[in-house]
Amino acid sequence: MMMMSQSHPSVHPLELLEGPPVIARNPAGPRVRMKDIQGMPGTPAGLALRLSQFVFVVLSLCVMPTTFDFPSVTAFRYLVAAVGLQSLWSLSLTIVDIHALLVKRCLRNSKVISLFTIGDGITSTLTFAAASAAAGITVLVSNDFNNCEENHCTRFETATAMAFMSWFAISPSFLLNFWSLASMR
Amino acid sequence: MMMMSQSHPSVHPLELLEGPPVIARNPAGPRVRMKDIQGMPGTPAGLALRLSQFVFVVLSLCVMPTTFDFPSVTAFRYLVAAVGLQSLWSLSLTIVDIHALLVKRCLRNSKVISLFTIGDGITSTLTFAAASAAAGITVLVSNDFNNCEENHCTRFETATAMAFMSWFAISPSFLLNFWSLASMR
Repeated sequence: MMMMSQSHPSVHPLELLEGPPVIARNPAGPRVRMKDIQGMPGTPAGLALRLSQFVFVVLSLCVMPTTFDFPSVTAFRYLVAAVGLQSLWSLSLTIVDIHALLVKRCLRNSKVISLFTIGDGITSTLTFAAASAAAGITVLVSNDFNNCEENHCTRFETATAMAFMSWFAISPSFLLNFWSLASMR
Repeated sequence: MMMMSQSHPSVHPLELLEGPPVIARNPAGPRVRMKDIQGMPGTPAGLALRLSQFVFVVLSLCVMPTTFDFPSVTAFRYLVAAVGLQSLWSLSLTIVDIHALLVKRCLRNSKVISLFTIGDGITSTLTFAAASAAAGITVLVSNDFNNCEENHCTRFETATAMAFMSWFAISPSFLLNFWSLASMR
């Protein structure tokens, strides 16, 4: 249609009136890629993901220290450190999301999304590694050694499960941010 | 410029001669997104990534069973299963990449890339979880229990390190595939 209006302007001069809609449609083209997918920063589903990350990670952070012997195992100390970092990150992003929703501000900025993606990637990797390591130890103690009388197996399992749940909530955040970053380029 | 040539065609009729390049540039726009980034399937760097995944994972798969007591620990059995699956996946993709390079065929097809992304995502997650769990046990045995006389700490560490190295090679594959999938949409 653009080709037509450009190659025969003198034959069909009235077509020029159709110009503005074409021009308006053109710059809108790339913006279609950046439409709000639920779960991205600044959307209600994104806020729900952040809140669930924070809740699970705080539960893990509260349950693990109730087993007073956890510092004797490196993997459990690492789990506490990783979910501690994750809780700070998720709390910050929750606040950013609430702010963005309240003032109806769009967080669709390439630099902001890059920052969120890198942060999500690092914290989710650390949390997942910590949860896996803790799961390895928990299974070793409860299944391989059958030594749950002397150890707080249930609490170890709960803390590990909460860390995994938080990873299940942070992965979609990471993937959606990465997706929206790739769509922007 | 397009706006100018469309709104004043009769004032500057010569500008119409510039029409074809504009038209030619337009459909080429989306194709720029799909350019070959090194490391994607069908590129030499992509093949190098696949080969290194396969080599590391096979090393891990060879080292772990030399410790004859590994089946007593669930995490080590899981590591062997995960790197076994990963080695099959990486070998298949290595063959696909070699074939694509030999016949100079482009693998830039939305369905193919989706399949590669999902496979890479699943295998890399399994390998990383297994490596982390094995690392948790290895650190428990070597640091927390200081019990390396009775256990094959070095071999456990080597197998775990090889699994991590293979994860470091598969992550870029996954991220690049995901990126290229997002750019296609």
